[in-house]
Amino acid sequence: MSSPTSVLKRLVVGRPFRSDRLGHTLLPKRIALPIFASDPLSSVAYATQEILLILTLGGLAYLYLTPWIGAAVVLLLAVVTLSYRQVVMAYPSGGGSYEVASTNLGPRAGLVVAAALLVDYVMTVAVSVAAGVDNIISAIPDLNPYRVAINIGFIVLLTAMNLRGVRESGRAFAVPTYAFIAGVMLMIAIGLFRTFFGDAPQAESATYGIHAEHVGLNTLAIALLALRAFSSGCTALTGVEAISNGVPAFRKPKSLNAARTMTAMGTLAITMFVGVTALALISHTHVVERTCDLIGFPGDCNTDAQRTVIAQVAAAVFGNNSVMFFYMQAATALILILAANTAYNGFPLLSSILAQDRYLPRQLHTRGDRLTYSNGIILLAVIAAGLIYAFDGSTTRLINLYILGVFTSFTLCQTGMVWHWNRALRDAEMPALRRRIRRARAINALGACFTGVVLVVVMITKFSHGAYLVVIAIPVLCVLMQGVHRHYAAVRAELRTADDDEPTLPSRIHAIVLISGWHKATQRALMFAKANRPDTLTALTVNVVDAETRALVREWEELDVDIPLKVIESPYREITRPVVAYIKNQRQSGPRDVVNVYIPEYVVGRWWENLLHNQSSLRLKGRLLFEPGVMVTSVPWQLHSSAQRDLAREEHVPGEVRRGIDRSTPG
Amino acid sequence: MSSPTSVLKRLVVGRPFRSDRLGHTLLPKRIALPIFASDPLSSVAYATQEILLILTLGGLAYLYLTPWIGAAVVLLLAVVTLSYRQVVMAYPSGGGSYEVASTNLGPRAGLVVAAALLVDYVMTVAVSVAAGVDNIISAIPDLNPYRVAINIGFIVLLTAMNLRGVRESGRAFAVPTYAFIAGVMLMIAIGLFRTFFGDAPQAESATYGIHAEHVGLNTLAIALLALRAFSSGCTALTGVEAISNGVPAFRKPKSLNAARTMTAMGTLAITMFVGVTALALISHTHVVERTCDLIGFPGDCNTDAQRTVIAQVAAAVFGNNSVMFFYMQAATALILILAANTAYNGFPLLSSILAQDRYLPRQLHTRGDRLTYSNGIILLAVIAAGLIYAFDGSTTRLINLYILGVFTSFTLCQTGMVWHWNRALRDAEMPALRRRIRRARAINALGACFTGVVLVVVMITKFSHGAYLVVIAIPVLCVLMQGVHRHYAAVRAELRTADDDEPTLPSRIHAIVLISGWHKATQRALMFAKANRPDTLTALTVNVVDAETRALVREWEELDVDIPLKVIESPYREITRPVVAYIKNQRQSGPRDVVNVYIPEYVVGRWWENLLHNQSSLRLKGRLLFEPGVMVTSVPWQLHSSAQRDLAREEHVPGEVRRGIDRSTPG
Repeated sequence: MSSPTSVLKRLVVGRPFRSDRLGHTLLPKRIALPIFASDPLSSVAYATQEILLILTLGGLAYLYLTPWIGAAVVLLLAVVTLSYRQVVMAYPSGGGSYEVASTNLGPRAGLVVAAALLVDYVMTVAVSVAAGVDNIISAIPDLNPYRVAINIGFIVLLTAMNLRGVRESGRAFAVPTYAFIAGVMLMIAIGLFRTFFGDAPQAESATYGIHAEHVGLNTLAIALLALRAFSSGCTALTGVEAISNGVPAFRKPKSLNAARTMTAMGTLAITMFVGVTALALISHTHVVERTCDLIGFPGDCNTDAQRTVIAQVAAAVFGNNSVMFFYMQAATALILILAANTAYNGFPLLSSILAQDRYLPRQLHTRGDRLTYSNGIILLAVIAAGLIYAFDGSTTRLINLYILGVFTSFTLCQTGMVWHWNRALRDAEMPALRRRIRRARAINALGACFTGVVLVVVMITKFSHGAYLVVIAIPVLCVLMQGVHRHYAAVRAELRTADDDEPTLPSRIHAIVLISGWHKATQRALMFAKANRPDTLTALTVNVVDAETRALVREWEELDVDIPLKVIESPYREITRPVVAYIKNQRQSGPRDVVNVYIPEYVVGRWWENLLHNQSSLRLKGRLLFEPGVMVTSVPWQLHSSAQRDLAREEHVPGEVRRGIDRSTPG
Repeated sequence: MSSPTSVLKRLVVGRPFRSDRLGHTLLPKRIALPIFASDPLSSVAYATQEILLILTLGGLAYLYLTPWIGAAVVLLLAVVTLSYRQVVMAYPSGGGSYEVASTNLGPRAGLVVAAALLVDYVMTVAVSVAAGVDNIISAIPDLNPYRVAINIGFIVLLTAMNLRGVRESGRAFAVPTYAFIAGVMLMIAIGLFRTFFGDAPQAESATYGIHAEHVGLNTLAIALLALRAFSSGCTALTGVEAISNGVPAFRKPKSLNAARTMTAMGTLAITMFVGVTALALISHTHVVERTCDLIGFPGDCNTDAQRTVIAQVAAAVFGNNSVMFFYMQAATALILILAANTAYNGFPLLSSILAQDRYLPRQLHTRGDRLTYSNGIILLAVIAAGLIYAFDGSTTRLINLYILGVFTSFTLCQTGMVWHWNRALRDAEMPALRRRIRRARAINALGACFTGVVLVVVMITKFSHGAYLVVIAIPVLCVLMQGVHRHYAAVRAELRTADDDEPTLPSRIHAIVLISGWHKATQRALMFAKANRPDTLTALTVNVVDAETRALVREWEELDVDIPLKVIESPYREITRPVVAYIKNQRQSGPRDVVNVYIPEYVVGRWWENLLHNQSSLRLKGRLLFEPGVMVTSVPWQLHSSAQRDLAREEHVPGEVRRGIDRSTPG
């Protein structure tokens, strides 16, 4: 924190926080990978299934398209991973897509990305939880009737955990993520090994036929079906950008470590996706949107659920209901719930950045501000739970809403990167550097084209299946955020000091102490007011109940208090109106005078005690602030119960680990 | 407001309010009657029906009991009316049953009455709205499927009206109440006239048979059935005590006028109840709890509703679907909705009295306090709507919950009056006065016995039909109110000044002005702080964003501000924690010193703007109040938008007319 400018020498450091100590809390790659990759890797659990679900709308006839669609997704995944490697290197501050878009394409583009990401977080929660529950139900089919309830239960659990401020630790992410990776890799290895030696695993659904919903498709219709399946498969890409938001949490060299983690993540995602898709094809796993379209399904297709693709493959490879099958389902469900949790962390992070740019209320920027985080978390949870309820907890239907937002921010980010490299190219002199920039630009341009095309494809193929909701939500969010921005700009303009209006010192200060009765709290307020040595000092009471007022006046006389007591009448038993009228009257005598109103306030320890105290004075204060030339001083009286409030409690806020903050370190 | 005591001569009258002006707003009897009698008179609309409904559980066999049960209800009505005449004469302050019970039987009895009355208000809303909707559906049977929705619609409407503070006028009550009285009287007159001349009206249900639910009853069972029917008929008494709560709103001589209005109300209620019951018997109106028990019912008994007794009688007397039939139904529905509205008024009135006695939060006592009224109104509405939803909008089932609370307060009030007269008798000397007191005591004793017996009967016959909910609710409310009372007592004890601890003047005042940037609002705060001439004056800023802080420090130096600027670090971007730490540190240097923290606050006009400002400072303030020896001064800066807030808006609060308050009078 030492600074070269002389000005900063005057800064008094409140508590020593050396940056080297902060270094302790930064993440090594082996922990950063599970933290940031739980979201993208978990999508392997459902991406293959989503491709198959769309293709089987045409019966078994078009399943031959699967490898091609899978290949397209893998290509896209590789391109996007490479593109985001560039982002990580060029923008190490962790602003991610939002920073790239707003820096290079202007604040409007940035705002669209921000809105898309906010929608994205909601969908991450909804889709991940829904997919997690799918896999739990695949392991324990009897839970199927309670699908929506279990979904909402998990959301409530995650919300409660995040509201309580449970500190996330790297290990909490590491164990399930590595467990999932290990399980999938083992499954792929054994499956391929068995296939190689002629004992290819067979899925339970291999023998099922399928009622085709679309039959006798012409070429155009087949192309559209393939595109729609590809759109659904693109869900494998969700969360890929997570690392680009977390660069500051990496150990030095931050950018390089982040880029390497990015590569590792991309490689893992591709391997796992390819492996699962291959096994699904080898084992002839058949899944359909509506269970009743399956021919040969053993249960009641109206009440029983199909198992997920990953469950069917695991059952085929490891043996149904084997220990490894349950291990796979547990690991899958866990990493998916964990992925949902990342949205609870990402949301405050993004809002903090948006607040710094004045697109969201400023208080979201400062930390330790549990209340505003809480509001955001509850909002996130309510919308996600509402979506799950509205879509019956169906992962497939929810995914229709997911991909649009994701690819909006991908496209704008990659386009922004092209602009970034264009600018860099203008300043670069050395041929080697120029070559490197050109190559980086080519990667990002490719990324922009690919993701842009996918965006259009998703928009066309998914619009009527729910994506229209996202098309409405993003502009609405943009307008709201712009409104907030405009408001802050207007206030700044209004408050700007002009050189010619020198502030004048008030000529006299009139102190008024509000008195409700003669007791310790009012005594203290009178003493404090007196210590401030005002020009005039008055004790003011409002006559609400005649008898009480009379008793107070008598006590005042008997005790011979040296401060005059004024009584103002209130025939309708109000407090605010007569006090404001009295002060207005006071101020007319001297326009440059200032009135200082002292209000004794009770400080209590239990929340419900607040309901019993200070309500009138709070309202009075709220009204007095509208009067020019009035300031209001609260003189607290700490009641015994106030000691019960635990003020020292450490408050953890979601997303700390991702920002390299570790409050548990003693200091 | 002139007072004989010399002390009060010093009182400064804020705004002249002469009591003679208040006299203008008091109610003449002809307006007071409809205002206070809409509740008791409206119960005529359903009391007869409730008796018949219970008796027909035994088929047509026991309808012969109706006149006897009716007679018992009339006797009870007469006794209770006479008893409450005594209350009105003896307690002109308008405290009603609550005041009588707590004065004579102690605060515990008063609390039980208060809890019973609070329950009563909820039930008045639920039952009156439900009965009103019954009569609308009787006129327009097609609305039957939407019964619950219409009920809740009316509750929402009433709630909105009362939240908006629509001023109730005497005329708004007078027209529907008199219209209802006139309609019922005309109906009785024509009906009896026709009967006398041999053309007795015949109800549409006269020819229906009834499936008996209980057949072959023994004597005990018949007695129980009769008692249960009587309990239901006692619903005719609900609201009778209303006048006793409104004595202060009457013109002088208040008690006498109130007592006369009471008599008029009692006479009207008895006449109408007798008339409607007689016509129901003459016209052979048959109603049952479950429509499907009717033999010969023309519609589908599962979806169609029977018409109310008053609708059937009106149809029989005036002709079905005649103009007068619709007039009767409209007037009945209107007076019932109006009766529900009285609960919206009575609730704040009672809470105000309870708050004065410190059983409810104090702020309910002061007026002009829309917020707390609003909370009460919303609570009332939500519980009433919940009950209507839970009981499918069935008046009959809701009435099971209604009568218990009503008779609890009746019994305790009348018992309290007996105690009151016993005391009066001890002081009375003159034989004439003693005779009069003895007579009054006899009336109240009779009332106490009658209502006490009814209370027991209601408890026994209705307990399992829903009254148990009330048996739970009343003690719970009592415990809550006692908790509030104990809390206030504890705080009073804690704050009581002892003679020996003389308050000491703080030795020095350290002023700290919180600075977020250099602009007009902080300039003003600095000037105000300076004008208070503290012993030390510091400008304090928290370094949240390095760049911004550096810019501020530079500006401070350039402008050469004569107040030193201290910067405290906040590595985690918090505001509260570092400021509190700094102040704690400050105070250690001088334990008798006081720190005065000045916080610039933005004053805005639109509610949502508050979300964008002052959140951090409010939280900081909340935390600082826990520190001993710290006072917090808000220095407001009124933004342009604050001018948009209409501060002068007259605020009307429900129940004004009933308390003799008329704010529309210019003054």
